[in-house]
Amino acid sequence: MTAESVETRAERKERTRRAILDAALDLTEDGTLSTLSLRQVAKQVGIVPTAFYRHFASVDEVGLALVDESFASLRALLREVRQGPVDGAAQIVDRSIDTLVAHVHRHRAHFRFIARERAAGPLAVRMAIRHEIELCERELATDLALLPGTAAWSSDDLRVLSGLIVTSMVSTAEALLGAEGRPEAEQQVVRTARTQLRMLLIGALNWHSRT
Amino acid sequence: MTAESVETRAERKERTRRAILDAALDLTEDGTLSTLSLRQVAKQVGIVPTAFYRHFASVDEVGLALVDESFASLRALLREVRQGPVDGAAQIVDRSIDTLVAHVHRHRAHFRFIARERAAGPLAVRMAIRHEIELCERELATDLALLPGTAAWSSDDLRVLSGLIVTSMVSTAEALLGAEGRPEAEQQVVRTARTQLRMLLIGALNWHSRT
Repeated sequence: MTAESVETRAERKERTRRAILDAALDLTEDGTLSTLSLRQVAKQVGIVPTAFYRHFASVDEVGLALVDESFASLRALLREVRQGPVDGAAQIVDRSIDTLVAHVHRHRAHFRFIARERAAGPLAVRMAIRHEIELCERELATDLALLPGTAAWSSDDLRVLSGLIVTSMVSTAEALLGAEGRPEAEQQVVRTARTQLRMLLIGALNWHSRT
Repeated sequence: MTAESVETRAERKERTRRAILDAALDLTEDGTLSTLSLRQVAKQVGIVPTAFYRHFASVDEVGLALVDESFASLRALLREVRQGPVDGAAQIVDRSIDTLVAHVHRHRAHFRFIARERAAGPLAVRMAIRHEIELCERELATDLALLPGTAAWSSDDLRVLSGLIVTSMVSTAEALLGAEGRPEAEQQVVRTARTQLRMLLIGALNWHSRT
């Protein structure tokens, strides 16, 4: 067995894994993972069910891998924005929204999947999505604690504010998906998201410092 | 034909209609209306498909009726809270959340349905839910305009604030469903919702009056 053939096998394995992930995205477009069978996925990929098991233990595990793919890079990107040059809360808001918009554009099928499965997916997948969103909230709360004006905030209040911000961004991502193919509607979503987050961040910081 | 038998027929018709609505709620518990067939609904109710058509033209129409049932009374109740005695923004927040919690409790199956179909349902049902949420936003914006401190707000900004509040309440309703059967988790959801809405309403009002 040459090095070349080993590599080819690894590549082929990766290609099949990718095909399974893409088939799951595709087959859940008009439904959810809850009602998708392993057999349907295998058929779409053109493999037998036993070949499926070389990659994933179940359809739920395919879902968990898709959740991972959707969130891992997004969380890293948003963290970079917040830990970059701090020229003011409004600028952080703008760059965070630009990052979200670009990410949703680039991974549209993934985020349509997240939007559906978050509400209607199998329990394990719903919980994984909930967990990823909680990680976003926790990371944001940590960064909010570094902003001027939050020194006197309790960690509970920081979590409430970060929860509000993340809820608003989840809702923005879903609105972006709903505006697909309508650039004007999408720009309206972005404008609204900017005003929402500024109102939230600047309003809340100001409110608290006066009570 | 006596009056009594006419009434009985109307009652029977209403009972079958109700059974169809309940069957749709039940059969979508692990999926969505998108993948539910009229045949499955008829079978669960114990009627033939032609009998189904005496009540609804399609499965989507069953979904639209469920959306109506879920929102009509909620919107009316929330409007009453806001138009009742105004003893302060914090009191309106508390009473609005109490109203939401009681309503979600009373119509749990309906709101589980709404949470799923909002993301994964057929287009017509997704649009109907989006429309109901927009009506909530619009009605709230109208009432916000009456609060002290909003005189200088543009109608766009009032819509942004009401959008944030409604997004937060939708997220609260979904969190309540997720905390089902765990009273402590539910109380935590309610506490967080109260702080979120106060931060939002009082923070935003204060922010704006200073810019």
